[in-house]
Amino acid sequence: VPTNLYDDPEFFARYSELRRSVEGLSGAPEWRALQAMLPPLGAARVLDLGCGFGRFCRYAREAGASRVLGVDISENMLARARAETDDPAIEYVLGSIDAQDFAPASFDVAFSSLALHYLPDVAPPFDMVHRALAPGGRFVFSVEHPIYTAPSHPGWVTDESDDQVWPLNRYLDESARITDWLAPGVVKYHRTVATYVNTLIEQGFRILHLEDWGPTTEQIAAWPEIGVERERPFFLLLSAEQP
Amino acid sequence: VPTNLYDDPEFFARYSELRRSVEGLSGAPEWRALQAMLPPLGAARVLDLGCGFGRFCRYAREAGASRVLGVDISENMLARARAETDDPAIEYVLGSIDAQDFAPASFDVAFSSLALHYLPDVAPPFDMVHRALAPGGRFVFSVEHPIYTAPSHPGWVTDESDDQVWPLNRYLDESARITDWLAPGVVKYHRTVATYVNTLIEQGFRILHLEDWGPTTEQIAAWPEIGVERERPFFLLLSAEQP
Repeated sequence: VPTNLYDDPEFFARYSELRRSVEGLSGAPEWRALQAMLPPLGAARVLDLGCGFGRFCRYAREAGASRVLGVDISENMLARARAETDDPAIEYVLGSIDAQDFAPASFDVAFSSLALHYLPDVAPPFDMVHRALAPGGRFVFSVEHPIYTAPSHPGWVTDESDDQVWPLNRYLDESARITDWLAPGVVKYHRTVATYVNTLIEQGFRILHLEDWGPTTEQIAAWPEIGVERERPFFLLLSAEQP
Repeated sequence: VPTNLYDDPEFFARYSELRRSVEGLSGAPEWRALQAMLPPLGAARVLDLGCGFGRFCRYAREAGASRVLGVDISENMLARARAETDDPAIEYVLGSIDAQDFAPASFDVAFSSLALHYLPDVAPPFDMVHRALAPGGRFVFSVEHPIYTAPSHPGWVTDESDDQVWPLNRYLDESARITDWLAPGVVKYHRTVATYVNTLIEQGFRILHLEDWGPTTEQIAAWPEIGVERERPFFLLLSAEQP
């Protein structure tokens, strides 16, 4: 297992202070939209790729999943995930998403929250998930939106009319992006919306729903600082079916 | 039939001078990508929504289509389309895309190039196309990319690092945009990538391919001015199947 950003003590401390880390699923503003894309979890076998603190794994069990497997590359994250449950139907595996392989048709639902943009290529994990899902199985995931990851200088700027604008460039240049996010030199992989969609289709999935996620009016009323996130989408949410 | 932008003499004159107008399909840099998304046209019944000068209609016949129907809202455009062919298997209809309705399963391929962003809502035309296509039929279209249509001030700006950036904002604000494109006050309707994709799915289509189109390296070598178009996608191309 390679050393991981989330095992850097300073990064981990800062990550742990984020609203989404402190408040759990409901502290992540995109959670309701992702949740609406999930099939009923009752009796489902659920896979969570990049499970972090295990919040979704525990949610899936509360929603009736029969078995949940969480995968994460960070020992820190999994140590905390393990400390927060003694449910024998939840299993955590330390390792990269890329390195996983499962028996065919061993899951009904695969989920991944903000993890796949750390992988240089999504074709191998999409293929792995496709094989791991049973016919009719569902794959639901979020990533940082390609509009968000593309720019050479990501960050709001104020234009001549005093509008906040997102300085988009390099959208079609699919390659690594190095940003300072909670720590210097964080590497994420920018790819287009087309690549996410077409790779799913090429691996045999049927696209069910796509969301260019931004906060709702109600969310902005409750948390005004995120209002600017409607100027460009923050996350890309996708759901697909293994037909 | 409402009066149309393309029937404004000055606009029409300027539009007629565009490279894509002078050179036909091959003068449109996205044509090869759209063409690759088409099924074989041999013996197909083809519908072209927003057919303009009728170039795609004539191409479809050359590619073996048995019958082609072109729809356009502009009398100017159709006058020229009619003047350029006497093929009895090509029929032109004057009217808005919104106002069309066809017998169920009367076409095998529906095509639309850069027309659907003039319509305030794509659900009715997508529903109309879905009914008009035979099972297994294909719908292939291009629109101005939502990243291109979103901004309050669309146009390249140079940032502090001397990079050309696209000042993206209002992405999630789906509504009319008024721009000066060949004429002042041209109205186009901005909607998100998600809306195009999800509306197709909701109307019963299966997504086959999506492209965030930008010019290829070869195209930039031949036409250097379009190099900047790789910084953000210019067109959105979609193909979907009526299953």
